Amino acid sequence: MLREALGVRAESPRPGSVGDFRLGPPRLPVDAVAEIVGAEHVGADEESRIRHTRGRSTLDLLRLRRLESSGAPDLVVMPGSHDEVLALLGHCSERRIAVVPFGGGTSVVGGLEPEAADFEGVIALDLQRMNALVDLDEQSRIAVLEPGLRGPQAEALLGERGYTIGHFPQSFEYASLGGFAATRSSGQASSGYGRFDELVVGLTVATPVGTLTLGRAPRSAAGPDLRQLILGSEGTLGVITSLTVQVRPVPERRVYDGWRFASFTEGLLAVRRVAQAGPLPTVLRLSDEAETALNLARPEELGGGGPLAIAGYEGPGDEVATRRARASLIFEDEGALGEPRAGESWERDRYRLPYLRDALLDAGALVETLETAGFWSALPRLYQGVSSALRDSLITQGTPPIILCHVSHVYPTGASLYFTIGCAQAEDPVSQWRLAKAAASDAIMAGGGTITHHHGVGTDHRDWLAHEVGPLGVGILRAAKAELDPAGILNPGILIPPA
Amino acid sequence: MLREALGVRAESPRPGSVGDFRLGPPRLPVDAVAEIVGAEHVGADEESRIRHTRGRSTLDLLRLRRLESSGAPDLVVMPGSHDEVLALLGHCSERRIAVVPFGGGTSVVGGLEPEAADFEGVIALDLQRMNALVDLDEQSRIAVLEPGLRGPQAEALLGERGYTIGHFPQSFEYASLGGFAATRSSGQASSGYGRFDELVVGLTVATPVGTLTLGRAPRSAAGPDLRQLILGSEGTLGVITSLTVQVRPVPERRVYDGWRFASFTEGLLAVRRVAQAGPLPTVLRLSDEAETALNLARPEELGGGGPLAIAGYEGPGDEVATRRARASLIFEDEGALGEPRAGESWERDRYRLPYLRDALLDAGALVETLETAGFWSALPRLYQGVSSALRDSLITQGTPPIILCHVSHVYPTGASLYFTIGCAQAEDPVSQWRLAKAAASDAIMAGGGTITHHHGVGTDHRDWLAHEVGPLGVGILRAAKAELDPAGILNPGILIPPA
Repeated sequence: MLREALGVRAESPRPGSVGDFRLGPPRLPVDAVAEIVGAEHVGADEESRIRHTRGRSTLDLLRLRRLESSGAPDLVVMPGSHDEVLALLGHCSERRIAVVPFGGGTSVVGGLEPEAADFEGVIALDLQRMNALVDLDEQSRIAVLEPGLRGPQAEALLGERGYTIGHFPQSFEYASLGGFAATRSSGQASSGYGRFDELVVGLTVATPVGTLTLGRAPRSAAGPDLRQLILGSEGTLGVITSLTVQVRPVPERRVYDGWRFASFTEGLLAVRRVAQAGPLPTVLRLSDEAETALNLARPEELGGGGPLAIAGYEGPGDEVATRRARASLIFEDEGALGEPRAGESWERDRYRLPYLRDALLDAGALVETLETAGFWSALPRLYQGVSSALRDSLITQGTPPIILCHVSHVYPTGASLYFTIGCAQAEDPVSQWRLAKAAASDAIMAGGGTITHHHGVGTDHRDWLAHEVGPLGVGILRAAKAELDPAGILNPGILIPPA
Repeated sequence: MLREALGVRAESPRPGSVGDFRLGPPRLPVDAVAEIVGAEHVGADEESRIRHTRGRSTLDLLRLRRLESSGAPDLVVMPGSHDEVLALLGHCSERRIAVVPFGGGTSVVGGLEPEAADFEGVIALDLQRMNALVDLDEQSRIAVLEPGLRGPQAEALLGERGYTIGHFPQSFEYASLGGFAATRSSGQASSGYGRFDELVVGLTVATPVGTLTLGRAPRSAAGPDLRQLILGSEGTLGVITSLTVQVRPVPERRVYDGWRFASFTEGLLAVRRVAQAGPLPTVLRLSDEAETALNLARPEELGGGGPLAIAGYEGPGDEVATRRARASLIFEDEGALGEPRAGESWERDRYRLPYLRDALLDAGALVETLETAGFWSALPRLYQGVSSALRDSLITQGTPPIILCHVSHVYPTGASLYFTIGCAQAEDPVSQWRLAKAAASDAIMAGGGTITHHHGVGTDHRDWLAHEVGPLGVGILRAAKAELDPAGILNPGILIPPA
C-alpha cells in the first residue's frame, strides 16, 4: 500500500549487524577512567561504542544502515555514583575530553552527536548503573530516583509501593529519567499527570566545577527557578545524578474514550473547550483527517469516519467518573460521536509507532516526525504553514509526501501539533529530509510556534533555537555554560548555538 | 489588649509627613533623562523621592517613622514605552547610574534598597505610565499587559471584557503586574488559579544590552525555560516591559467555606489530603491554634474553637459544586466541623492585615510576617523550628512574642507556612527584628525549607539564598547578570549575593 501511495522505488539498505562496522581504535586510554569507575565499567569494544553512537532519529537510523560510524565515542564509561560522575567530569575537563551523557539513547534530534573535533576524544557517560529508587516520601508524594532508570524500571520500583510517575512518552520503554528531565519530555498522559519538567521538584547535578543541589519546596520565590535552567539543558550544563519527582498512587481506574468529529477544525474547538473548562483529561489527543484515515499504528484497520480524539481518564473511580462526565458533555455539545473501540485500540498500540518505522525504512520509505506547540489562536496557521512547507519541499524533490498530524498535548492556552511525514526515499534521503525539515522549521518560526514541544533541541533544532530565544537568550545559555562547564566538555555543539 | 499581652511600653514615633524629611539635592541632572522620557515624567522633588524610598516591610516603616531618608533615589523617572526603558538603561549603563525598577513599591524584603554607594546616583524607574491592556486573545485565553498596571487596574480592564487573572496577593491593591512577575508572587487564590509565575506565558524584557522576548507556546522543550530565569529576577537582569498572562472568565460562582479542626496537626493532614486528591480548591488556608484564637484581621471577633481552615471555590457553578463536594467529603472524613460564617468573614478582611500593622506600630508593638515552604514531611519540623527560633530570640531580647502561623498555599507535594510575629518594640526595634529574623531564617535552612515562598529575596534574604542554591547557583545568577547587565546598574545588591 505504501509503495503505491508514496511511489517508493527501491528498498533501503537493511540495518547492518554490529560486526559490520569498522571503527578505528579508541583515541583515549582506558586506564585513567578505569581508576575512577572500575575497569569492568569501561567499554572500549566496537559493540559498546556503536551502540552508543547517535540516537534514534530517522537520519540516525539511515546513517547506521549505511554503516556510518562517525561520531562513535572512544570509550563508554558507566559510573556508579554521583561522586564518580564528578571525578570523571574533573578528569575530562583537565584532559579536554568531550563527554556525552547517555541515558536511553533515544534522542530524535541529534542530541547524542557532539561537535568534538577539537577534543582529545569522546566519552559516552552511560548512566545505566545509577538506577536506584533512593527514597519514597509517601507523605509528600515525592520519590528520589537515579537518572539511569529506564521508564519501565522506575514504574516497576514505584509500582511495588503503589505509586506511579505517570510519565509515558512513546520512548518510555528505553528512555531514562535523566533524559526525561534533561529534554523536558512530555508523555502521552502529561495533560493529566503533568509534563516531566512539571513533575521534577528537586535535582542534584554534577558539573565540572562541583555539585548543584536544587529544590527545597514545591514552589519558591527565592529568585529565578534554577531547576528550570537544568531541565532542558540536555547535558550541556551538568549531569543530573538524582531527581526528586512527584508521584501519585497507581490509578484505581483507567478509561480511554474515542470521539469522532466532522472536521479537524471542529475537533480543535472541542479539545480547546475541554482544556479550558478543566480539569483536564489524563490523555487528550486529536488526529487530523489524514492521520485518522491512515491510522499508522494499525494500518490493517483503516480508519473510517472523521477526525478522532482520544480522551483518557486515570485516577480514583469517582474522580475519573466526574472528569469524564464533564469532558463528555462538552464533546457531545460540540457534536462529537462516541467511538467505543478507539480508546482501547489506542492504548494497545501506544508504543508501537517507532517499531513500525523500521519496517517502513526497510521498504524504502522515509518516515519521520516533528512537533511544535503554540497558543490556540496560532494553531490553524501553524498547521497550514508547516504542512505546506513540508509538502512543497518534498514535491519539489520529486517525492510527494503523506502528511499526518495530531494534537498530542493540550493546555488551557494552547496545544502541540505532532506531524508524521512519509514519502519515498530519494537518492540521498539524508539531504532530502534535511531540506524538508529546514522548510518545516522555518514555517514553525514564521507561524509563531516553538521549534520543539517535547523532542528537545539537540543539534537539529539549534539554529532555530537561536531564532526563538534571540541573541540575548543564547547569551544567557552560553554564560551559564561557561560558569558550570568552563572547559566546554559537556555535549559540545548540542543545544547551545556557537558564538 | 495587645499592650497587656505583649508588654508594650511606649508608643512608637508616628509616621512623619513628607515635608518633615530633609533630603540633599539630587546627585543627577534632570536634563539627560528628560530628553528620553519628557521633563514632565521626571521627578526630582522631595515628595516624589521619599515616596520611592524603600518598601513596606516593618523595618522600612520604622525607618520612615524615624525620618531616615537614606536610600532615597536622586530622580524618579517614568518611561512610557519599552523603547524609553531601553534608552534609559543604555544611558544609565554609560553613566554608571543605579536603576531601581519600581512598580507598587510594596516589597517587604528590602527589594527597593540597592547598594549604590559606588554609583553616580540612583534612579527609581517608576513603571506606572506603562499601564495598558495591550491585547486580549480570547481564543487562547491570554492577555498582553504592561508591567505598571496595579492589581485592581488590571482586573478592571480585563473584567470589562469578562476575564480575570485571579491573582490576589495581600498587596493586590498597590502591587503591579511587573512586580508580581519579578518576585514570583503568590496570591490568596493561587491554589486554584496558579501562582503568578505559573500564569505568565510570555515576557518582553528590556536590558542594558537589548531586548529579550520569551514565550511562543504554553510549554516547550526548546532548551531551559528562560522565562523562569526572568521570573524571580527582581529587576536585577532587566525590566519587564510586557507580560503575556493566562486569563480566565470571571467566575460565575464564588463560595468560601470555613472548617474547624481539633488541632493544627489534624488540619494539616486534612488540607494535605485535599491537595493530593485534587482538583485543588481555589483558596485553601489553615490557621494554627494561636492565629485562630487571635484572629488578627478582626481582633474584635475573638476566634473560638479549634484551628480554622478556609476552603474557597471559584468557577462555573457546576464545577464549583463538584470541587466543593469532593473537598468537603475529605474535611468531614477528617473530623472537621463546618464553620459557616468564617468563609465570608475571611473574604471581607482579606486585604486588611497590612492596614492593621500601622495601628499596631503606632501603639508601640513590633509586628512583622515571614514565610517559607517545604515538602509535606518537612512541615512539622519547620513549623516547630521557626517558631522556637523566633520565640527564643525575642525572649532573650526581653520581648516575648506572640507567634501566629497559617498554611497560606498548598501543593500536592508540600505547602507554605506564613508566620506573623508580634511583640513589644525594644529600644532599637530595627536591630531587634534583624536578630529575630536571622534566627528564623537559619531555622528555615536547618528545617529544609525555602527562604521565601512568595515575598521574594530582596536584600533581607540574600545571604540565605546563597545557602539555598549554593555557590554554583549563585554563580549562575551572577553569570546571567554579567551577560545582560554588564555595568551592574540594575538593582545592585538586590537578590544576587556579591562575590
